[in-house]
Amino acid sequence: MNALPYDAARLAVLAEEITTNVAELAALGWTPATSSNFSRRLDDGHVAITVSGADKGRMGREHIMVVDLQGTPVASDQRPSAETLLHTRLYQRLPQVGCVLHTHSPVQTIASRLYAGAGQVRLEGYELLKAFHGNSTHEAAVDVPVFANTQNMKVLAAQVDALLDQQPLWGYLIDGHGLYAWGRDMAQARRHLEAFEFLLHCELELRKLGCRT
Amino acid sequence: MNALPYDAARLAVLAEEITTNVAELAALGWTPATSSNFSRRLDDGHVAITVSGADKGRMGREHIMVVDLQGTPVASDQRPSAETLLHTRLYQRLPQVGCVLHTHSPVQTIASRLYAGAGQVRLEGYELLKAFHGNSTHEAAVDVPVFANTQNMKVLAAQVDALLDQQPLWGYLIDGHGLYAWGRDMAQARRHLEAFEFLLHCELELRKLGCRT
Amino acid sequence: MNALPYDAARLAVLAEEITTNVAELAALGWTPATSSNFSRRLDDGHVAITVSGADKGRMGREHIMVVDLQGTPVASDQRPSAETLLHTRLYQRLPQVGCVLHTHSPVQTIASRLYAGAGQVRLEGYELLKAFHGNSTHEAAVDVPVFANTQNMKVLAAQVDALLDQQPLWGYLIDGHGLYAWGRDMAQARRHLEAFEFLLHCELELRKLGCRT
Amino acid sequence: MNALPYDAARLAVLAEEITTNVAELAALGWTPATSSNFSRRLDDGHVAITVSGADKGRMGREHIMVVDLQGTPVASDQRPSAETLLHTRLYQRLPQVGCVLHTHSPVQTIASRLYAGAGQVRLEGYELLKAFHGNSTHEAAVDVPVFANTQNMKVLAAQVDALLDQQPLWGYLIDGHGLYAWGRDMAQARRHLEAFEFLLHCELELRKLGCRT
Repeated sequence: MNALPYDAARLAVLAEEITTNVAELAALGWTPATSSNFSRRLDDGHVAITVSGADKGRMGREHIMVVDLQGTPVASDQRPSAETLLHTRLYQRLPQVGCVLHTHSPVQTIASRLYAGAGQVRLEGYELLKAFHGNSTHEAAVDVPVFANTQNMKVLAAQVDALLDQQPLWGYLIDGHGLYAWGRDMAQARRHLEAFEFLLHCELELRKLGCRT
Repeated sequence: MNALPYDAARLAVLAEEITTNVAELAALGWTPATSSNFSRRLDDGHVAITVSGADKGRMGREHIMVVDLQGTPVASDQRPSAETLLHTRLYQRLPQVGCVLHTHSPVQTIASRLYAGAGQVRLEGYELLKAFHGNSTHEAAVDVPVFANTQNMKVLAAQVDALLDQQPLWGYLIDGHGLYAWGRDMAQARRHLEAFEFLLHCELELRKLGCRT
Repeated sequence: MNALPYDAARLAVLAEEITTNVAELAALGWTPATSSNFSRRLDDGHVAITVSGADKGRMGREHIMVVDLQGTPVASDQRPSAETLLHTRLYQRLPQVGCVLHTHSPVQTIASRLYAGAGQVRLEGYELLKAFHGNSTHEAAVDVPVFANTQNMKVLAAQVDALLDQQPLWGYLIDGHGLYAWGRDMAQARRHLEAFEFLLHCELELRKLGCRT
Repeated sequence: MNALPYDAARLAVLAEEITTNVAELAALGWTPATSSNFSRRLDDGHVAITVSGADKGRMGREHIMVVDLQGTPVASDQRPSAETLLHTRLYQRLPQVGCVLHTHSPVQTIASRLYAGAGQVRLEGYELLKAFHGNSTHEAAVDVPVFANTQNMKVLAAQVDALLDQQPLWGYLIDGHGLYAWGRDMAQARRHLEAFEFLLHCELELRKLGCRT
């Protein structure tokens, strides 16, 4: 339960930021057929998140609602995204995280299927690995986990939790589904999202070119 | 024969909706070389449909005409698309359908040729299958039929009719030609169209990556 | 020699049409690195054509000049494109042609190299073959010739001439170079250009998918 | 040390030119996740260059700073790009160079990894080779060097220097990283950049199509 009110002015700023950024991601084709969802931390107990089922290319202020850290709607009778729990568990667990972006680009979906058996995608040897907060060289390697898809968000959230016990993480794939990426704020989360998309695209193309097995 | 008049105000609204949406689809490259056609149900006896041969990237109100459910022009001397019958048979058959979209994206055309021999494309294991009205899980499978191409629309319409006797359907491919997709209204038809395009694209890419045979 | 003056008002209209259309083609990435050239028939003895070397994404009226049907500049000290002769020979030979478009898309260039050995690309089984003026069915086949590249335009022009003696033609490829397409006016030439691009793209993708050898 | 002042009016013009051009390159997806950097020669002793870490899709005047030819900031407490030295060494060495562009497109990154073992990519048989200043025929061949990546810019700069002793060069790749291209001014550097991108894309596609080994 969350009895404290949130700051309406901050909500207005974040809602504007979300709709502007989601429109850009929709234009890239990363949110097909009303899929994908996006959120920002409002304060210690509240999250601004996109409502269920909206066309991400035509979003307005009315498509952003507030939930508490358990995913329960606050002062709203709108339905939050079915995957709200995957957002709120990250905010509960990682106090430094202020933004969570979930997209369904073709590259993300294809990579998730291709590497589902292996359970992860290893990214190494790329200068762009420096885009992930904390990396300062291309000599690092980043393993992107791929979880099995399920309509049970508690199962998925628990798997993410278990992995976060073992390693730092800026994103993960769900098989046949898409990518979750996050960061301190919108700018960092988008930088991480773009880096994942770019590096997964390179891996798929290199495989088509006969350089991966 | 259709002696009843239609609602001119509703036609104006639908024509605006069609031209706006077609411009977006044209910008995606899904309507090459004046191909493709689009319609909306006006009322029980009338359909608003794009005229034959127009450049879909430069459409205006003058490129939308009215036909009855037999495909005969109503109060117009313009020529409706040669494929008008494929639209009107869906409206006759399926009272809940309010919008039919026919596009020619490269992905749709390539998939139609690749799977013409098999007669269908099986889509399974994707979260985006939930985009099709009536599906609530990625554990469903959707089979997209691929019909042989013909310049005889009666033959094609009868094949679609026969298939609708057996199963619900939100779209089909025609070999070397393109995709038909439909829905309750423009928003749902576009959601179905985008989901077909996305999933066919994933299937083609997975095959290039050696994951389909 | 061409002593007759041309209609300046018609030139203004055609120059505007060319720059508008070229900007659209440049935005598609079909005119990389100041390549490509474009023309319209002004009258029986004059052609409006793009000047040599301009960035096709930043064209204005000053980048359109007039040449006679021998390719000689008329009332201008600008240099026409090195390939002007390929345009003017088509206008000389084919009185019904009013527009010639030469682009360098990746698809066109790649197809030209892939099929240079065979000397042609066969396009068949596509609904979009109906986009070529004179075709009314997908059951036609269109062979797109691929000529060897040369910096000698007279050699190329003679090869095109020889082929036109044998068959009607709406376009051809030059190896490692790009595509020429033409039509009655800008709309028809663009329809032909888009159809070639689309069909060559489908052929390349089908080959990647193992459906062509 | 560089005690002479630079021309503030010229800096304003170049900064505007850089931000306009970088926005276009960002829209193409060639500057993912705040990567890439860009510069223009201001005068014999100064260079205008993008600051470190900015989102290239949202650049303004405040993201352009001045360094001397040793890469030391002039009248600024901003941090120049880590790769500033790769820019300034080109300006020191090649007096005719006025613009250096470094991008990270997927094509550039993929090609750099694919050809890193060979140490170069040979481009031949393309009309677009004429886009490189000094080439007048498609019968030339251009070898694009691929250097091993390193976070030590002095090592990379020395390798580029050694190669410039042997041959003229308009660009090079760094493994897993991206492309450097340059020219007399922004227009020529962009023409070279577009030509490299286009030709590398063609090479990758031809390899997928079984025409390269």
